[in-house]
Amino acid sequence: MGEARLAAQVEIEVPFQDVDLMQVVWHGNYFRYFEAARAALLRKINYDYPEMQASQYLWPIVELKARFVQPMRYAQRIQVRAELQEWESRLKIAYRVQDAASGKRLSSGYTIQCAVDARSGELQLVSPPVLRERLKEYL
Amino acid sequence: MGEARLAAQVEIEVPFQDVDLMQVVWHGNYFRYFEAARAALLRKINYDYPEMQASQYLWPIVELKARFVQPMRYAQRIQVRAELQEWESRLKIAYRVQDAASGKRLSSGYTIQCAVDARSGELQLVSPPVLRERLKEYL
Amino acid sequence: MGEARLAAQVEIEVPFQDVDLMQVVWHGNYFRYFEAARAALLRKINYDYPEMQASQYLWPIVELKARFVQPMRYAQRIQVRAELQEWESRLKIAYRVQDAASGKRLSSGYTIQCAVDARSGELQLVSPPVLRERLKEYL
Amino acid sequence: MGEARLAAQVEIEVPFQDVDLMQVVWHGNYFRYFEAARAALLRKINYDYPEMQASQYLWPIVELKARFVQPMRYAQRIQVRAELQEWESRLKIAYRVQDAASGKRLSSGYTIQCAVDARSGELQLVSPPVLRERLKEYL
Repeated sequence: MGEARLAAQVEIEVPFQDVDLMQVVWHGNYFRYFEAARAALLRKINYDYPEMQASQYLWPIVELKARFVQPMRYAQRIQVRAELQEWESRLKIAYRVQDAASGKRLSSGYTIQCAVDARSGELQLVSPPVLRERLKEYL
Repeated sequence: MGEARLAAQVEIEVPFQDVDLMQVVWHGNYFRYFEAARAALLRKINYDYPEMQASQYLWPIVELKARFVQPMRYAQRIQVRAELQEWESRLKIAYRVQDAASGKRLSSGYTIQCAVDARSGELQLVSPPVLRERLKEYL
Repeated sequence: MGEARLAAQVEIEVPFQDVDLMQVVWHGNYFRYFEAARAALLRKINYDYPEMQASQYLWPIVELKARFVQPMRYAQRIQVRAELQEWESRLKIAYRVQDAASGKRLSSGYTIQCAVDARSGELQLVSPPVLRERLKEYL
Repeated sequence: MGEARLAAQVEIEVPFQDVDLMQVVWHGNYFRYFEAARAALLRKINYDYPEMQASQYLWPIVELKARFVQPMRYAQRIQVRAELQEWESRLKIAYRVQDAASGKRLSSGYTIQCAVDARSGELQLVSPPVLRERLKEYL
């Protein structure tokens, strides 16, 4: 039972075009911020998209969930933290968004990715050795 | 205990710019399709965004979840069905996406919205009378 | 001197998430609508993105321009017309957006694409024979 | 004849979701990067969107143009420079995008905005005094 403590954080300023006519960030745009934090996390283990492709595994997102506690507005500075929560059979990453100035929690969520063999298209029920290798110093 | 049977469906063709470098629709873009189906549903009860604003209630999305069963590709025709699942204390709408040609299920999900008084900013623990009024022929 | 009369039109309803906090469509989102009209035009000659890739030519956009005459708002129905204007050395497509109800002109623009050989990466100074072949009934 | 030397630069990393199935940034997403540089420029004179709204003038974009010299790819670091070019009757801002590592020019463009009185909706043929006031140290 590996207990991973792999995490990463990015700071983002809410851009103009992500805010909707209700003056708050449209919910679909939160995944842009989650994506930035996930990329930062995966780069820590040298397994971002280009390395995934090179390893002959794709990692499509198969499930996600998000809770929106407080709305976010134009030019607000936010911190998005991604933390690895599961890796043995699938990659589950949890996110927490907070206001950069106050530290107040704004939203949270998770994404789940499964490995798919790029050649056969077959879903992997256990994470492939390449992921275990990349994670070894965090386990 | 009101049992709602309010539902709506839209047909969409996956546009070029929604597809990512892995050749599949990026997960954050699914909420564009859910949004289109939700608008179709809310228009059936004459309570889309302009009418929400006119009623002095905002309905921010406070939670969402999605499962991605099969990837979607450029120019694929999809059908997105939205169905009202809860309305008494919050608005829960469930979505199902299927391939238009084969009827095969591609993804599913839900969004939860809560009423907020536009003047006081107060969260409503019970849906306001205006929603009940709009829904009456479906209850 | 080929004179092309190839044109196509799509009708679109402005979606919620394309509208910014100023209550009008954010300028970068107009290219989503131009894209839909361009795809409709290119399908008329059976030369949309998949066929471009199959023909071993890429057609990146190298220049674009747009004028915004009247703003567009949530749920507005618009018609977007694309018309082929040049094809001999590059693909120039002009766009005109009008309100579906009133026919009033809302915006206009153009895009220019050049052929690039997918294998060598070389820019083509003359459009490749495959384009001429597809266009022949319109010239 | 005021000659303005107001400019600003931002550094951006190309995010995953901005790249299309051709493996390059979709042209409509360049305006996200122009927007970030324009916001940086307008903040230098304390006249970003919130201050525009407070001044009772809207500044919709009425024209834009862009040239794409080299494609941009996932995770590429780019620098986007915005420079004020005209301000007396309209706001013309020019953009230049270059690769952060090599300094190589990738694209360029401009946007033109006109002042509109927020109360009357009337287009202003001369920039309002508030803009001149904000710009005075740059003229």
